[in-house]
Amino acid sequence: MLTKLQLKLVEQVRQQNPVVLTIANMVTPDKVADGLSAIGASPIMSIAPQESLEMVELANAITINLGTIDDKQKDEVIAVLKANHNQKPIVLDPVAIGASHYRLAFAKQLLHNYQFTVIRGNAGEIAALANINWHSRGIDSGNGQADLHKIANTVAREYHCIVVLTGQTDIITDGNNTFINQLSTSYFVTNVGSGDVLSSVIAAYLGVSKDYYTAACTATTVFTATGVKAARESSGFGQWQVKFRDELASIKSSEVLSVL
Amino acid sequence: MLTKLQLKLVEQVRQQNPVVLTIANMVTPDKVADGLSAIGASPIMSIAPQESLEMVELANAITINLGTIDDKQKDEVIAVLKANHNQKPIVLDPVAIGASHYRLAFAKQLLHNYQFTVIRGNAGEIAALANINWHSRGIDSGNGQADLHKIANTVAREYHCIVVLTGQTDIITDGNNTFINQLSTSYFVTNVGSGDVLSSVIAAYLGVSKDYYTAACTATTVFTATGVKAARESSGFGQWQVKFRDELASIKSSEVLSVL
Amino acid sequence: MLTKLQLKLVEQVRQQNPVVLTIANMVTPDKVADGLSAIGASPIMSIAPQESLEMVELANAITINLGTIDDKQKDEVIAVLKANHNQKPIVLDPVAIGASHYRLAFAKQLLHNYQFTVIRGNAGEIAALANINWHSRGIDSGNGQADLHKIANTVAREYHCIVVLTGQTDIITDGNNTFINQLSTSYFVTNVGSGDVLSSVIAAYLGVSKDYYTAACTATTVFTATGVKAARESSGFGQWQVKFRDELASIKSSEVLSVL
Repeated sequence: MLTKLQLKLVEQVRQQNPVVLTIANMVTPDKVADGLSAIGASPIMSIAPQESLEMVELANAITINLGTIDDKQKDEVIAVLKANHNQKPIVLDPVAIGASHYRLAFAKQLLHNYQFTVIRGNAGEIAALANINWHSRGIDSGNGQADLHKIANTVAREYHCIVVLTGQTDIITDGNNTFINQLSTSYFVTNVGSGDVLSSVIAAYLGVSKDYYTAACTATTVFTATGVKAARESSGFGQWQVKFRDELASIKSSEVLSVL
Repeated sequence: MLTKLQLKLVEQVRQQNPVVLTIANMVTPDKVADGLSAIGASPIMSIAPQESLEMVELANAITINLGTIDDKQKDEVIAVLKANHNQKPIVLDPVAIGASHYRLAFAKQLLHNYQFTVIRGNAGEIAALANINWHSRGIDSGNGQADLHKIANTVAREYHCIVVLTGQTDIITDGNNTFINQLSTSYFVTNVGSGDVLSSVIAAYLGVSKDYYTAACTATTVFTATGVKAARESSGFGQWQVKFRDELASIKSSEVLSVL
Repeated sequence: MLTKLQLKLVEQVRQQNPVVLTIANMVTPDKVADGLSAIGASPIMSIAPQESLEMVELANAITINLGTIDDKQKDEVIAVLKANHNQKPIVLDPVAIGASHYRLAFAKQLLHNYQFTVIRGNAGEIAALANINWHSRGIDSGNGQADLHKIANTVAREYHCIVVLTGQTDIITDGNNTFINQLSTSYFVTNVGSGDVLSSVIAAYLGVSKDYYTAACTATTVFTATGVKAARESSGFGQWQVKFRDELASIKSSEVLSVL
């Protein structure tokens, strides 16, 4: 697995301080911004389509989060995607699209009309994109019988992008290569917005590396390793949240190695 | 008092993982989501009326929070209430309606047109619903001379629902029975959104029990007992917030008993 | 420096519990509300123009934060400013106006048409108001060659208000007097929304004192001293956030003195 990782990216993000534009949901923007800031990236958010061009110019990478999408934010999302003339890397986080046809239709519309670099979602969300029947429960991944590797692969090939399917096991694939990450802690599930933060953290890594697939694998591994390290050093959900933020800001590539 | 409690609900929420749809304000949605997730419920939020039907279908209980209501969110609230064909339990949190005629008029419009299961508010908010003059100060409860028991009772009878009037003493009444909870810590006042979180926690308990009155009494007691336990184990506002989240996620019914 | 401070304001805010109306951005409203509540002020937020008159009546001071301004919120901002017949003190926080012509134009429109008491921003934001070229990076201050004292002074004189230019060194000026605050910790930079919280904290101090210049100097000094004290007592970003909230709620004027 380690061959797919470039752990020096941990330090490169801190040195290069990439600007990540996140079109955020209204539930967890503060967690996403603090998470980006903790790893050494620079968060920026906006809800006005009039700012899209300048915001995209400023950004090294972009995240589109559908967690509380509505008609107004759809305009903002499309303005951002149209402004991305220089094809800066974009992560799509299709939050809870399995629970809402409105969200699912918009996610598919976006994927058909714009090129994304990474789609980051849980099993229920990626299954929805693959038109697989899934017992989804809102923001939870729910459960289903399908082969997750196959689902991730189908979606990656369909939309010519990298799929990061997260859960107890993370499956990362570009349709040809597959990377498996087994690091996990149940605190990620309790902590609302873990996925939102990861999506923007992946964007930060894409912002400092041309090898997007390796960057996505590394970002996901480092993020989960940080969560596991925090879990070992804390007891209780609140304490873990604190320790996780401590570690996001301070973890070194050598420490990631010791968790692996 | 203990006869009105069903402390095994603490564990039932964790086992049944009820989905709570919260139409949230824009200040504390992350605290509400994390609070629900910590107690073992599954939070979902949405701001698009187009999703109302599916969101309500998915939900085991609903919270309507008026904390930053505007014309756009009014449409969303009404769409959710209209979609509730199966009469899933609904909690109304009339945040700061004593401070704004716009909010108060909308709260009364809702209460006249839709059946709520629980209204959860502080003294100033419940007094406003009872048309009692009250010196309200925004989100704070303010102070007044009226008999809080009488006010809670009046509102419960008027709207045929359970009233949870929270403060240093919590008064819970369905218009016939009254339950008093004296557990309290000043950290709840300092922590913005304590009431918002409690309203959605009550909804989670309503989502796993048919006896709504007992569920509301139990949810309020467990929530405040958790806050008191956290206060005993911490010093300082920030530390209490952390410990409170630890305890929300881990407290057992036997531990609640030891706080009582 | 101490001659420009009135450290008893620390206790006066707790005693008088000023109501601060914040027209907030959608990223950090919870941090702002908790910060205000921690220092003993009472936060209130609203997004409906219909509430402006009552909200302003209720408030002792107002903060206008442009962090995620859009056309809808512009209406709300202007409704609040028009409702301020009694000239309650107002803080403008021109978040990231160096990164967006849309924000910059609105900030200038506001400053030309309404009298603000304080403008609180970082170097890039204040430079943008002074029409100085600056390498801005979103919410970060960026860097430039200009003399920060001169920039702050220019803006203060142009708009007849107090400028609080924050950074590693804080420069506070009313165009005639200048106050320098050297207290600083890098955690303020990592913690997204530090500036948002400070702007509303300054408003709280303005709400309990007629000497606005001294109140702004004192609020900024106390806030940064609190951050420095928290940094000495913690290690790691998450722990600092917790300790900072502890200290905001408990720091005494005598403890501020010992940090100075």
